[in-house]
Amino acid sequence: MNSSGGDHGPKRWIRGGAQNVARTRIFDVNRVAYRHPLRADAKDFYVIAPPDWVNVVALTPARELVLVRQFRFGIDEFSLEIPGGMIEPGEDPVATAVRELREETGFAGARAWLLGAVHPNPAIQSNRCHLVCVEEARPAAALDWDEDEEIEVRTMPVDEVYAQVRAGRITHALVLDALLLFAPHWAKIKGGPVI
Amino acid sequence: MNSSGGDHGPKRWIRGGAQNVARTRIFDVNRVAYRHPLRADAKDFYVIAPPDWVNVVALTPARELVLVRQFRFGIDEFSLEIPGGMIEPGEDPVATAVRELREETGFAGARAWLLGAVHPNPAIQSNRCHLVCVEEARPAAALDWDEDEEIEVRTMPVDEVYAQVRAGRITHALVLDALLLFAPHWAKIKGGPVI
Repeated sequence: MNSSGGDHGPKRWIRGGAQNVARTRIFDVNRVAYRHPLRADAKDFYVIAPPDWVNVVALTPARELVLVRQFRFGIDEFSLEIPGGMIEPGEDPVATAVRELREETGFAGARAWLLGAVHPNPAIQSNRCHLVCVEEARPAAALDWDEDEEIEVRTMPVDEVYAQVRAGRITHALVLDALLLFAPHWAKIKGGPVI
Repeated sequence: MNSSGGDHGPKRWIRGGAQNVARTRIFDVNRVAYRHPLRADAKDFYVIAPPDWVNVVALTPARELVLVRQFRFGIDEFSLEIPGGMIEPGEDPVATAVRELREETGFAGARAWLLGAVHPNPAIQSNRCHLVCVEEARPAAALDWDEDEEIEVRTMPVDEVYAQVRAGRITHALVLDALLLFAPHWAKIKGGPVI
């Protein structure tokens, strides 16, 4: 079904000037003027602009995933997640993933490859989050936490991670994305359906 | 493995005062003072505070999902998504989902139930997104778009939706979350593994 398409479909708005309205360590907020191609007046929209992010599905030889538990200021609560972080300017997403995994958890792997990339929120946020798989992950290095990081590192059997998601105990949206894209790979390793 | 736990685990920071630094139609940005329990000085963290959101996995009798394609200001590009929107004060998430589905696409279903809820970003954002399944969805009502909404409505076989995700053509993080939590239900309907 296609209730509207072609000339009747959604139009590409024309981007005008942008003004910064807030600048934080993690993201900027910009006010951007957009004009609909069939209307005269521009309208302001607010866009959250962080650098690109990565997160990491790190699989151990025992078929467990490396998880981190930390206090999260956004929700004023603890959160159980896979490791992740911000991409430095010019850094390759897979390299960021390997670096963040090592710094946050001390784990290093034998193979690292891109599962895919998502937009955390196309409506109001400009960046992407790259989802990376690291295989043969083993404890290998000392921890090197960023300021204000205080992290409990644990590993959990992969199927138990999916069960924790279904039970609502792992709730970070970008973690679920990585687990969705990791599922076909896990099904191959495991030799059966995942979820 | 538990490299740090108990008294050595991550501490709960103590929330102090908050100040609004930006207010938009879709979200506020607040500066919140937090103090680590073992440190004297407080530190500011920035929190994006939108109302809770919903999105909707709407399954038609022909086993297709209802999708919407629209121009998204955050990424300055078109995006193919499942329907969704903001919860009004006091509104039940399932009711919001049914309302948004009807307003954005004209579809209405026979059963609506909660797949789960996620945090779009625990690190920097306070709200939740509730993921709702609507079954037996059929065209039933006139469209009722919000101002600035201009939406192409289409349906797509469920397996093709998962294939589009794997191919990187559906990239909205919260859409992937809904599809991950919908997967076990779809496997039951379909009688086989999904992904």
